Amino acid sequence: MSIETLSSVRSFAGWHRQYSHQSETLGCAMRFAVYLPPQVEEGEKVPVLYWLSGLTCTDENFMQKAGAHRMAAELGVAIVAPDTSPRGEDVPDDSEGAYDFGLGAGFYVNATQAPWDKHYRMYDYVVNELPALIEAEFPVSDKKAISGHSMGGHGALMISLRNPGMFVSASAFSPITNPVNAPWGQKAFSNYLGDDVETWRQYDTCELINLADSIPPMLVDQGGDDSFLHEQLMPENLVGAVASSGLNFELRMQPGYDHSYYFIASFIEEHLRFHAGHLKG
Amino acid sequence: MSIETLSSVRSFAGWHRQYSHQSETLGCAMRFAVYLPPQVEEGEKVPVLYWLSGLTCTDENFMQKAGAHRMAAELGVAIVAPDTSPRGEDVPDDSEGAYDFGLGAGFYVNATQAPWDKHYRMYDYVVNELPALIEAEFPVSDKKAISGHSMGGHGALMISLRNPGMFVSASAFSPITNPVNAPWGQKAFSNYLGDDVETWRQYDTCELINLADSIPPMLVDQGGDDSFLHEQLMPENLVGAVASSGLNFELRMQPGYDHSYYFIASFIEEHLRFHAGHLKG
Repeated sequence: MSIETLSSVRSFAGWHRQYSHQSETLGCAMRFAVYLPPQVEEGEKVPVLYWLSGLTCTDENFMQKAGAHRMAAELGVAIVAPDTSPRGEDVPDDSEGAYDFGLGAGFYVNATQAPWDKHYRMYDYVVNELPALIEAEFPVSDKKAISGHSMGGHGALMISLRNPGMFVSASAFSPITNPVNAPWGQKAFSNYLGDDVETWRQYDTCELINLADSIPPMLVDQGGDDSFLHEQLMPENLVGAVASSGLNFELRMQPGYDHSYYFIASFIEEHLRFHAGHLKG
Repeated sequence: MSIETLSSVRSFAGWHRQYSHQSETLGCAMRFAVYLPPQVEEGEKVPVLYWLSGLTCTDENFMQKAGAHRMAAELGVAIVAPDTSPRGEDVPDDSEGAYDFGLGAGFYVNATQAPWDKHYRMYDYVVNELPALIEAEFPVSDKKAISGHSMGGHGALMISLRNPGMFVSASAFSPITNPVNAPWGQKAFSNYLGDDVETWRQYDTCELINLADSIPPMLVDQGGDDSFLHEQLMPENLVGAVASSGLNFELRMQPGYDHSYYFIASFIEEHLRFHAGHLKG
């Protein structure tokens, strides 16, 4: 494994860096971003929060707009932000270049249908290849948490549920909780996974949480004025799935907030403190 | 005066909003952004920090990337961010579309040379038209501070020096301190103001501070690894200008930091606290 440093910038006494590497899983060059808190310069191995972004994003949106470096520096937590899909000339895209499928919209699944199955394997990339690379190349411990926004909130919750013990905690902003029943999820899953809805359920947070005996501690924030709330995100389905389970789960409706990074920035400190409490516990 | 609301988003229990208005000074429609802290909802009139952005920016860069809303909300300070030049089909641009002159590069001067003199009057816009509009239309007091980055750092310091008593404090990140002697400034000033260098000096922070008997309290942060440091920004000229003056001025070199918004985000809390101390004093 080799990685190329694309940029390196001081931020809150730590470092924001972008890297490129050739992904075996995805069959293309992938860029990712890392925030390293100042504690690493004292030789400390820090835990890692993986951040999965939403539709149209790259590794850059969260790092530039969420204001997360400040608390990551204070708490001594590294942040890793992958891209949201495979990239490159060989990677097929939505035939009409739609924002909600193909490039920038990998949905954190392993595609089984041609022509998507060759490159669109973001599930394996996030679960296996990327953490192995991070733990081999960076001064980090093996303690991991995961969070994300919208499509990435779906990814974070779903991946934490499918991999018990891998993440000490999971959180999400405005997640697509029930993609099997949401237009975004239905479009993506039918193309990536085919028409058999049974094969979709393994990637659906509501379905997975219904089957779970235990889950990592979970925190979800949802803006009350999010324009995607009722059609795409449906947090009420997630609440219904956990209502009588006694699971360690909190959903907070935040009145007046929308789907933007201003919403994420407003509450990222609380998510970072939530994760740090488990990462350092 | 009438303004049109373009967007309104909740952020840190306050509001981020974008507006458009027809500027008489600039002869075109102008967009600006306002952060209103939560205190305005309790009927409080809050003081205002004006933020002037650098080359290529619009009203959006600072609001999205600086992470300033958190402290503005805590301190009860509004932030107003104008665009960096006049805009629109009628507004001339650099003949080659260069990033450092014309659109996105108004340099906060009143142009005197054709064809720039019709629209490029950002000095008058920031000093007169915009504050009058803000104080007429928003729940703000008449207490004002000013800050900015790079070209906007030049604008903030220069405007505060030329208008004694208007701003209770001024600060800058990576300002162009001595545009008369910097390639960016020389290109812009020769085009906007003509070849007579004497007419440039009224817009040069080092020249102005040399002539000042008193200045508002000033704080300047400069990254030590800023790639524009020696050729364009020249903070040493500013230090030389104030060295023996006893003026209320602090320049802080910040080792390892570059020219980006990650640098601004790392120190914006200290600038906001600096301004709030004077705005509320």
